[in-house]
Amino acid sequence: MSGRTRVLILTELEPELPPPPLNLLPDDIDVVEINSAPSDDQLAGASVLYVWDHRFADLGALLRRTDQLRWVQGASVGVNRLICPELADRPEVTLTNSRGVFDTAIAEWVLAAVLAHVKGLNDTWALQRQGRWQYRTTGRLAGTRAAVVGTGSIGRAIAERLARLDVEVTLVGRAPGDDPQFGSIRRSTDLVAVAAEVELLVLAVPLTPATTALVGAAVLAALGPQGFVVNVGRGPTVVESDLIDALRAGTIAGAALDVFEVEPLAATSPLWSMPNVLVSPHMSGDYVGFEIDMMAAFTDNLRRWRSGEPLHNIVDPAVGYVPR
Amino acid sequence: MSGRTRVLILTELEPELPPPPLNLLPDDIDVVEINSAPSDDQLAGASVLYVWDHRFADLGALLRRTDQLRWVQGASVGVNRLICPELADRPEVTLTNSRGVFDTAIAEWVLAAVLAHVKGLNDTWALQRQGRWQYRTTGRLAGTRAAVVGTGSIGRAIAERLARLDVEVTLVGRAPGDDPQFGSIRRSTDLVAVAAEVELLVLAVPLTPATTALVGAAVLAALGPQGFVVNVGRGPTVVESDLIDALRAGTIAGAALDVFEVEPLAATSPLWSMPNVLVSPHMSGDYVGFEIDMMAAFTDNLRRWRSGEPLHNIVDPAVGYVPR
Repeated sequence: MSGRTRVLILTELEPELPPPPLNLLPDDIDVVEINSAPSDDQLAGASVLYVWDHRFADLGALLRRTDQLRWVQGASVGVNRLICPELADRPEVTLTNSRGVFDTAIAEWVLAAVLAHVKGLNDTWALQRQGRWQYRTTGRLAGTRAAVVGTGSIGRAIAERLARLDVEVTLVGRAPGDDPQFGSIRRSTDLVAVAAEVELLVLAVPLTPATTALVGAAVLAALGPQGFVVNVGRGPTVVESDLIDALRAGTIAGAALDVFEVEPLAATSPLWSMPNVLVSPHMSGDYVGFEIDMMAAFTDNLRRWRSGEPLHNIVDPAVGYVPR
Repeated sequence: MSGRTRVLILTELEPELPPPPLNLLPDDIDVVEINSAPSDDQLAGASVLYVWDHRFADLGALLRRTDQLRWVQGASVGVNRLICPELADRPEVTLTNSRGVFDTAIAEWVLAAVLAHVKGLNDTWALQRQGRWQYRTTGRLAGTRAAVVGTGSIGRAIAERLARLDVEVTLVGRAPGDDPQFGSIRRSTDLVAVAAEVELLVLAVPLTPATTALVGAAVLAALGPQGFVVNVGRGPTVVESDLIDALRAGTIAGAALDVFEVEPLAATSPLWSMPNVLVSPHMSGDYVGFEIDMMAAFTDNLRRWRSGEPLHNIVDPAVGYVPR
């Protein structure tokens, strides 16, 4: 082994994402592409692991096979699949995520889904397929009220763009506080009360014990028949069966879902065929060329790592996200 | 006849729009609901006509039957159907429109259509109907370039909201000039050159001789294969057969159309079944409750009329819109 930094890139066995643009990595490192079952030879001497495969959920097993890894970066913002007891036991291993890369794309996806709902575009396309000219009146987004749950960079990007379109936005987070841009941050434990005050509920939280099943029957009932739910965080934040019940009963107006309790969404899920539901295959943040920006975020951190500077976007494994 | 103001309200024979909320009119006027063939008794003594029926296109014939009308308001912003030689011959008759009522709704509809295109929502819904989980990458709106043709209140509302979402906007108008918000206004006679510089072309112009067939094969070719056309003005601004050819050939990416050369759009039009086309039945501006705001705009002008104040939104029949 030379003194060159050895970087493991864990790529997808059955690629769904674009492949990692390895040409963007510096020349003077050793790059080893691995899958979820690397050989001992591949692991030997590697201090850095870039988990490109966002479906990889076995970091614990990998950490048990080597004591040389010091830094693991995930190719996503939500890194719940990488959180494991081994990380907590090994404070010398730093976990980072890809915070920032997806903010604009996800915020625009939320606007697209919400405006499509407000303007009834899915109905317009359905009538178009039937060749029917059917005049209707639809809604306006300006002047409506939204709660955005999640005060990370994605939640803030969503809140900011909704506010730019004259939506009255309430930020909801784990801890209450005052925000220079959005005023008082409400507590997620008060979500039933917050939901009763808004028409739009946007979920942009990492999956943690505190955010699991955060939105169930009580929140949905409070949201009410004009209410629209958007989830771009992680599926288990919403109790999917409660959401399906509310959509069936019409006690909320609709939902746009980019994430689900189990992905891919089961073929048997009633969500596929529900009117007023958008089923999106976990792609809201992934824009054409995002893999280049995601690799750039890694190479920037790699430069910091090699020069001894502090890394960006360090995740606290105890909470599951990048603390503010 | 008393000295009470007699106001004719020309309503729709086969209502498509909500009915006029007559209860919002002041009590101390005579309100006469008419259709497109009023009796002489109905016309007698009436000085004010509110054309609620946006499909009415026979104002000339009506003006020839009475010399008492002094003010005609249209329940739309584009009043091309009301422009007639009789108006030019009778300078004592003032024509006003409903400028301002629809600005926000139309601007939001444009954002909805554009973001749905950028995020591929129609494809997502198509895959959803097939129960297919198919990950894709889509686009970002921020950083793209748009030309908005039309410097009236609707065009400006569209341009402003696109700019709020970090789109680089060029305003295009009849006359060049400098605008405090959007910088240099380009001439619509230079539209081929402007189209070559943008991905998004939004049309929000009244129908006049200068805007008829403004967008044909040359503009569409300049717009190019990433180009997307949105028309919320009047159909004949676009040469529909050229647009169909460009969409078929893939020389532009798509279109969202709320207006057409002939409305309702003919059942035989290939636009109905084209992928990447949104066919919307002339409803982009009509939000739930718009009829109340539209009547309020009329009653405000009626108050001005009765107290001798200048009317708002006076259309110059020679150009066909409210001059700046």
